[in-house]
Amino acid sequence: MPEIRIDPITGDRVIIAPERARRSNDFAAAPPREGARSQCPFCPGNERQTPPEALAYRDSGKPNEPGWRVRVFPNKFPALVPNAEISESHEPGIGRHEVLIENPDHDMPLSQAPPVCVSEVLQACRERFRVFTADQRLKTAIALKNNGPVAGATRDHPHMQLLAMPFVPPRLQVELEGAGRYFAKHHRCVYCDIVERELTLRDRLIEETEFFTVVAPVASRFAYEMWILPVRHQSNFELLADHELRDLGQVLGSALWRLKEAASDPPYNFILHSAPFAQRSINRYHWHIEIMPKLTNPAGFEWGTGVHVNPVPPEEAAEKLRSAQPSRGHQRSSPDIRCD
Amino acid sequence: MPEIRIDPITGDRVIIAPERARRSNDFAAAPPREGARSQCPFCPGNERQTPPEALAYRDSGKPNEPGWRVRVFPNKFPALVPNAEISESHEPGIGRHEVLIENPDHDMPLSQAPPVCVSEVLQACRERFRVFTADQRLKTAIALKNNGPVAGATRDHPHMQLLAMPFVPPRLQVELEGAGRYFAKHHRCVYCDIVERELTLRDRLIEETEFFTVVAPVASRFAYEMWILPVRHQSNFELLADHELRDLGQVLGSALWRLKEAASDPPYNFILHSAPFAQRSINRYHWHIEIMPKLTNPAGFEWGTGVHVNPVPPEEAAEKLRSAQPSRGHQRSSPDIRCD
Repeated sequence: MPEIRIDPITGDRVIIAPERARRSNDFAAAPPREGARSQCPFCPGNERQTPPEALAYRDSGKPNEPGWRVRVFPNKFPALVPNAEISESHEPGIGRHEVLIENPDHDMPLSQAPPVCVSEVLQACRERFRVFTADQRLKTAIALKNNGPVAGATRDHPHMQLLAMPFVPPRLQVELEGAGRYFAKHHRCVYCDIVERELTLRDRLIEETEFFTVVAPVASRFAYEMWILPVRHQSNFELLADHELRDLGQVLGSALWRLKEAASDPPYNFILHSAPFAQRSINRYHWHIEIMPKLTNPAGFEWGTGVHVNPVPPEEAAEKLRSAQPSRGHQRSSPDIRCD
Repeated sequence: MPEIRIDPITGDRVIIAPERARRSNDFAAAPPREGARSQCPFCPGNERQTPPEALAYRDSGKPNEPGWRVRVFPNKFPALVPNAEISESHEPGIGRHEVLIENPDHDMPLSQAPPVCVSEVLQACRERFRVFTADQRLKTAIALKNNGPVAGATRDHPHMQLLAMPFVPPRLQVELEGAGRYFAKHHRCVYCDIVERELTLRDRLIEETEFFTVVAPVASRFAYEMWILPVRHQSNFELLADHELRDLGQVLGSALWRLKEAASDPPYNFILHSAPFAQRSINRYHWHIEIMPKLTNPAGFEWGTGVHVNPVPPEEAAEKLRSAQPSRGHQRSSPDIRCD
């Protein structure tokens, strides 16, 4: 049973989750071998090895059988659980922790998947976020991807994680407060101003479409860090419209393809940051995706000070990422391409 | 030339340091091989491959020649530099970034070094901290160790880093504010209360000596995390007395030996946290060493939320670390043991 502990000095929350020590690990021994696939619990045919699905988009088949294109189920080794025992000494770790399988194909990363399939992955995120909002105990959710063991992945098959929490996590709190201070001073959303600045000066712009911009943020913490921001103000990802979702699939796939080309397919995390659940958009916050490549291991300096050291100036990173045109390698969308 | 950039939303500082991309890396290709030692710039005989030393404790020899037991010199690839150009657009990355070679022996980790040698390493830290305090531009310093490539080390030879900064880094700021709030409410140092609680209840106590306690902190972020805290209140490491320094050498060496035994020699960082430079101890902060093993890679959840997920309850970690008695493996101190 996970429990939440609070550091008496910093107020930092830590989740103590002994369940997560029991996870098996594709990467522990050697690179994935022949035969690994038949044992992969995320591959079609092995649905009984996972908890029952919460959501699936299917061409055929019954729930928890093959035929799905995207599949979501509760994490077997959760950091947070829907129904926790009440503990006297510690805050219980209530929440949702789900796994989203992006594709039935064990070898199809998001960077190479057709945009329509990436859109369906994001559609599944949106659908689960909308379900989470109905649980009054939950305040926020994030969607995230760990790509490669260095970035914390323990499974090879392309997947994401969804987390819904009963508290506003510290990182989001810091963003909300910073954006709130900016709004109080300038009567503008700071993210809207970032979008405008980058679309005008273009030195850190990587891609722009009708609905999204991809930029190297001015204070990039990681080499080749990218942010995907909606051009139009919107605080909550769950409010995203269908036509924006389709565009986002192309933009996210293309950004990951650029990263693979420009920086030799590095491990990375990406995180979808969204405002606390709300019925309508709030004016001071702007949902976005942060892509954080892990080209170097975070060292004592970062851990000890909270200051990141980044060896690649973001203007230089943007230029390289911009030049990595996804013309041939990245499959462009065509409405009849299927995700399987 | 490193520059400091500030995130417009969070206020986070990031150091953009292109110099650090030029570092060579012992670990990039394969595990250290035969012959690596003759090329190691940190080994005796290769002193000319490093910048001139700022400090050395020697048995013999002239500066920048063999004969030293501990040696400190400026980092060749600094995150911060003593004299930065004034830039119009960005805060210059002024500060000190030094390398401390713990031992002439390429294969002698701190966990196996005689306590008297560990004490000398800490003495060198104290001496450099005292020098940094004389530079009015500098506000704080940390001493840190990255052990193993996963923990961010790029060199195999046992070494630490010293960093002095022109600002109070965010992590220390959070600690100072949290400890300040606690002091305002309870008229007590929160760290003193932690020491008292752990010495009384003992469920998270790992070691105690006359001057120090080693504990698993209640909200441990990492599996087998340890904090070394002075029993007597003291805010600034540079104020440490000689007899305390001797004790600390034994305590730090023993803690690292316990970690090696209890958790199969994991990669780790340790960080010495100390209050901003002051002539005398302040009452609301308590210097300490945080040892952070890296048994799992930090994943998207941690990066995205700021919440750590730890699979090992600290009470369980403390029990294992306590049982790893440093009776045979760890060499106990004897005044005539030399560091070389």
